[in-house]
Amino acid sequence: MQLDNIVTPTMIIDREKVTANIARMAEKARSQGIRFRPHFKTHQSTAVGEWFRPYGVKTIAVSSLEMAAYFAGHGWEDILVAFPLNLRQLDLVEALSARVRLGVLVESAPAVEALTSRAAQHLDVWIKVDSGSGRTGIDWRAGERALELWKAVSACSHLTPRGLLTHAGYTYSARSADEICRRYQEANQRMLALKMEVESAQSLPVEISVGDTPGCSLCAELGPVDEIRPGNFVFCDAQMLRLGACRFEQVAAVVACPVVALHPERDEALVYGGAVHLSKDYLIEDGLTKYGYVVLIGETGWTGPLEGAWVARLSQEHGVLHIPRAQLDRLQIGGLIGIIPAHVCLTVSALRRYMTTNGEEITTLYWA
Amino acid sequence: MQLDNIVTPTMIIDREKVTANIARMAEKARSQGIRFRPHFKTHQSTAVGEWFRPYGVKTIAVSSLEMAAYFAGHGWEDILVAFPLNLRQLDLVEALSARVRLGVLVESAPAVEALTSRAAQHLDVWIKVDSGSGRTGIDWRAGERALELWKAVSACSHLTPRGLLTHAGYTYSARSADEICRRYQEANQRMLALKMEVESAQSLPVEISVGDTPGCSLCAELGPVDEIRPGNFVFCDAQMLRLGACRFEQVAAVVACPVVALHPERDEALVYGGAVHLSKDYLIEDGLTKYGYVVLIGETGWTGPLEGAWVARLSQEHGVLHIPRAQLDRLQIGGLIGIIPAHVCLTVSALRRYMTTNGEEITTLYWA
Repeated sequence: MQLDNIVTPTMIIDREKVTANIARMAEKARSQGIRFRPHFKTHQSTAVGEWFRPYGVKTIAVSSLEMAAYFAGHGWEDILVAFPLNLRQLDLVEALSARVRLGVLVESAPAVEALTSRAAQHLDVWIKVDSGSGRTGIDWRAGERALELWKAVSACSHLTPRGLLTHAGYTYSARSADEICRRYQEANQRMLALKMEVESAQSLPVEISVGDTPGCSLCAELGPVDEIRPGNFVFCDAQMLRLGACRFEQVAAVVACPVVALHPERDEALVYGGAVHLSKDYLIEDGLTKYGYVVLIGETGWTGPLEGAWVARLSQEHGVLHIPRAQLDRLQIGGLIGIIPAHVCLTVSALRRYMTTNGEEITTLYWA
Repeated sequence: MQLDNIVTPTMIIDREKVTANIARMAEKARSQGIRFRPHFKTHQSTAVGEWFRPYGVKTIAVSSLEMAAYFAGHGWEDILVAFPLNLRQLDLVEALSARVRLGVLVESAPAVEALTSRAAQHLDVWIKVDSGSGRTGIDWRAGERALELWKAVSACSHLTPRGLLTHAGYTYSARSADEICRRYQEANQRMLALKMEVESAQSLPVEISVGDTPGCSLCAELGPVDEIRPGNFVFCDAQMLRLGACRFEQVAAVVACPVVALHPERDEALVYGGAVHLSKDYLIEDGLTKYGYVVLIGETGWTGPLEGAWVARLSQEHGVLHIPRAQLDRLQIGGLIGIIPAHVCLTVSALRRYMTTNGEEITTLYWA
């Protein structure tokens, strides 16, 4: 790394670690006969997307139609937009589905009607199911509703009903690896029950798509599912570390921040690196709000995490790090310190570009 | 407004309200003989910057050197970077100070040494003081330290010591308008005491620069200060509303979000509008975490806030709104709903562009 060239908050990724993370998850899915559809909302970059290809990845998930368009423009031909269909963007849905195999999520009759009423290109349609997290989707117990939607989709010649999709986001609030796996498998069983109900009432096969990084990382058995869509595992972050969903050696992204002030009298350092760089997402640990962990950065990478240190407060451009006095000596005003962000997907969105430890510049769809 | 053209989360500002907000603050400063140096980190746009000129504004504050460069390129000639000097960007400091009257903040000997050791252009130097918020700066009781820094700056021919600067950010945690004003004035008195200590020990005049929106908005008397630097007042947001630092009629910015799902059984609606659009900043009210308030949007503007409604949860692209069932009928899947973000400065940073109710497109420094 050319640390001298880093003058503002800059995310650095370690390509070897990224590749190892991809290889591990791809192999886990392959060995269990499950389709790997990584969620590209974490890295948001065509350059990093290419690193998946050697592992046979041909199907991807994204979180917006804009992101689908970006990856469609770079050779990805099977893209699932893992966000409930936005009826205000049907023109873009049509344009994209003419170019690639596009999947969309529906969870309401108006959404299905909007799709059927247009003379659209072919579309894969997934029914979004709430398997327990309470964010959105039809309730996993609402078999009749699922069936109604399924039949409405089936009745339309340009729509293919693919299956049931969920994000068991309630694994993120689990308190142990065991609890994560219990919740992950519980959600899978709920999906399976719903699938059987839908399959028993009509003739088409019903797939199951799931995929949160904690569940897919920690549970040896991926369960009775057809595809997984984890995203965060590619970089990992402080939330994943706290959950035990990754080891420090797997953390592949840190944000290098200039140190601008030291306050040993209260065990704090101020860095250039605030909410507009890291995002204001956080984790709670020992009753404390932490916006990230702290690492030391050198020319060859990073070491840590620094014990007893964390990002304690963030304002627009300021980051206040809690660092025990004895460790503060390792920092100097004008030097760099590294932060493992709480939620790396949001950090990528905020910074919009990053670099590798080898100095390669990487841009995302929101850069330029 | 052409609401049909809004298909993704889009911030809309009402130029009349913005102008009224500017006029009010400019007049308040003028009538008390205080320099108005608005903080441009809120709107981050040269277009909106122009709206300040009719009110005689010639001095501005920004939160980064990149932002200083952006406004310097658009006719602003007196710019204060209200963030502690980043020693890794001294080249940019030099380049900018050759073009405009540039002010920087210092709070440590290494920072002053870095400035004095370079054959730089002329610079205004402010000493950053912690008047009680505990974020950064030298302690307001540290008279000797302030004097040492002052003298070190004075001794350098290309540096002009301008004064003492603080951000009394602890007004944001106040629980009433009275408490905000007490804290604002308390911070001012602390600054005044420090100023007198520095002035008594050397011959140059010492200015005081302050400026948080709650204090500058709510306190009739701006106090013994030379300049104010509020930023947020230009748009206002949910945090300002909760603090009573603005009225609803002054809120000049909302984010229009497509409604993608309705969950009347739990008084919730799902919108396309998540952490990557609004930021994850929040306020606490009645023990509840709120990422924003909700308004209804029509062709002529917005009405509300919708009683008993707020942004309850945010993930990357999802926003979950709590809206009482009786009000949910006013929303429809595929329609738009408005959000007053918790912290509008971060929302501007996240979205990077916005539009006026008249359909004018506005870009910020991070767009393109």
